Amino acid sequence: MLYAPTTIRYSMTSLISSGEFGLIRRIRNRQPSGGDGVIAGIGDDAAAVLPTPGTALLYTTDTFVEGLDFDLDFSTWPQIGFKSMAANASDIAAMGGTPRYALVTLCLPSRRTPEEVDLLYEGMHRFNETCGASVHIIGGDLSATDGPTVLSITLIGEADPARIVFRSGALPGDALCVTGDIGGSEAGLRLLLRRRKNPAFAIPDASAETLEKHRTPRPRLREANLLAASGNVHAMIDISDGLSSDALHLAENSHTGLCIEADTLPVRTATRVAAEALGIPIVDLALNSGEEFELLCAVAPDAVSDLAAELMAETGVLLTRIGFFTTKDLGCLLRTPGETRPLVASGYEHFAFHPSPKSRS
Amino acid sequence: MLYAPTTIRYSMTSLISSGEFGLIRRIRNRQPSGGDGVIAGIGDDAAAVLPTPGTALLYTTDTFVEGLDFDLDFSTWPQIGFKSMAANASDIAAMGGTPRYALVTLCLPSRRTPEEVDLLYEGMHRFNETCGASVHIIGGDLSATDGPTVLSITLIGEADPARIVFRSGALPGDALCVTGDIGGSEAGLRLLLRRRKNPAFAIPDASAETLEKHRTPRPRLREANLLAASGNVHAMIDISDGLSSDALHLAENSHTGLCIEADTLPVRTATRVAAEALGIPIVDLALNSGEEFELLCAVAPDAVSDLAAELMAETGVLLTRIGFFTTKDLGCLLRTPGETRPLVASGYEHFAFHPSPKSRS
Repeated sequence: MLYAPTTIRYSMTSLISSGEFGLIRRIRNRQPSGGDGVIAGIGDDAAAVLPTPGTALLYTTDTFVEGLDFDLDFSTWPQIGFKSMAANASDIAAMGGTPRYALVTLCLPSRRTPEEVDLLYEGMHRFNETCGASVHIIGGDLSATDGPTVLSITLIGEADPARIVFRSGALPGDALCVTGDIGGSEAGLRLLLRRRKNPAFAIPDASAETLEKHRTPRPRLREANLLAASGNVHAMIDISDGLSSDALHLAENSHTGLCIEADTLPVRTATRVAAEALGIPIVDLALNSGEEFELLCAVAPDAVSDLAAELMAETGVLLTRIGFFTTKDLGCLLRTPGETRPLVASGYEHFAFHPSPKSRS
Repeated sequence: MLYAPTTIRYSMTSLISSGEFGLIRRIRNRQPSGGDGVIAGIGDDAAAVLPTPGTALLYTTDTFVEGLDFDLDFSTWPQIGFKSMAANASDIAAMGGTPRYALVTLCLPSRRTPEEVDLLYEGMHRFNETCGASVHIIGGDLSATDGPTVLSITLIGEADPARIVFRSGALPGDALCVTGDIGGSEAGLRLLLRRRKNPAFAIPDASAETLEKHRTPRPRLREANLLAASGNVHAMIDISDGLSSDALHLAENSHTGLCIEADTLPVRTATRVAAEALGIPIVDLALNSGEEFELLCAVAPDAVSDLAAELMAETGVLLTRIGFFTTKDLGCLLRTPGETRPLVASGYEHFAFHPSPKSRS
């Protein structure tokens, strides 16, 4: 059922009533009509789409629970809408695909207002404009809940089947490369958490861009397409849990080992400033910051410099070699100037996977 | 992100830990590998699927919130898994398509156990066996929540683009027809509610099959394909909110009026027995029972009897003419032996749309 009035739940009548508020109509009217390939969008039993001939379909879904994945103390509704779309689009990009259509499901407690829902969708539309994407919302579901707000997006992408990049294709000898810079998302979140805990804590001006990285991260859509089309990227993943975790996923899926060279990790000044203010070692931040939505990939070693130059020329984004893949028996290692030690997903004891913001400081 | 370990949430570690419980692995291992057209399923950034050439893709999503859409007092986890898949499959069927792939998202409070999740998935797999479907789960997301359990399914179907049936194609003069029988789902739910409120209330043996209709409704998958392929079905919708509401949707989307003849509504004996025990007029029950997952359709008038005969011969399921479409200016009417009055979606004041079971008796 796709946002048809039939999805109205009893206890939502305070918020959603097809006669009075017309929330579904609001959602529908916000949405530009048409959309490439769309035969039927919001309002029938199911949406119908004609896929581009010869393409593969990519599907991902990500769910955001209030208080766990987002916090209204730290982000506005448009920012939450933007980021939820960004997180899903990043998964499509990491396969070498292009995001096309979305289904958006909301579970809304009675305290939510239609205006808040409008702002959430505004953020999703703004994501398109800001990131050069054209994701068309073709349906969804609305439900009441007596729990926290839940936002769940299913994103549908298309890709050339010959150019899909999996997590599993890395070869020993490949370079481990990352786009952009890392550590900023976690830094921004931790600055916000610290200030909530201690209102006297001053967020340094020079670290302000880390707040934006936390609130409205930009997935690497064009960059992903360029990397996939090069034919020299053997495996790819987006950094949503942290570099250490996601590097381990690449190695595990590819049946390889790898070595990360800590002193090559690309970190911006703003992130260093934040790390200093927070008293966190910058390497820990870079290794374990989730929701970066940078791309981590295995690149044929002799193609790295040309690919980096092409990426810079076309998109202005860095591609940095931060290590290399090895045979599986060598394991996964982190090399710092002082020592080489096993790479571990620092995980939730220290840096949480998608942690509850309320549980960190 | 598709059930990758990366979707593990901090506060879920009691339930989901890739090292210990391996809930994602349990889900993955339950799932037969392969699946027609599946290039990549659970475990990469996104699933990748090659659509059948020449088909259109259908997308629907439906969300089930504990205490609102399901109640563990009334249904087991396998029944909840079965029904959630049935509800989504019914939407694909109502477009004339075949359900193919699913993304399953769970928000789980900490009291839920891995065994309960296993049982939920068992019900989804049982749906395939029972209903002759072959829905392949290609991914999903897992999250913690401090609210109620939320189960959200996105179902992907395929259809011949020339045979998709929308809500909008009904013509004045078409017959309004319904598959199977109606009223049983609401009857079953109300029997359960009555017994919870009054433990001395005895559910009549002869009404037992209404409980099954509430718990494990069977969507009309083969029937939908036959109806769509006939070329004589101009519009179709599944009854998820109640005949009255869904008939109004057909009329609204088709810009027609319609007339339902109350004494033609197909109702089983078990439903009559339940209505009597509950003291509810049988016509009210038939008109307003949601989650029936029968198909309501507009059929070329001279094709009805042949189509009904074909459906009975091929599937053993009734197709009953229960009224007719008119021009829009005549409005939507309900004709009973005594009077003709406007058809209204009885809605939540009386019969709720997907009501909270706890709010009815």
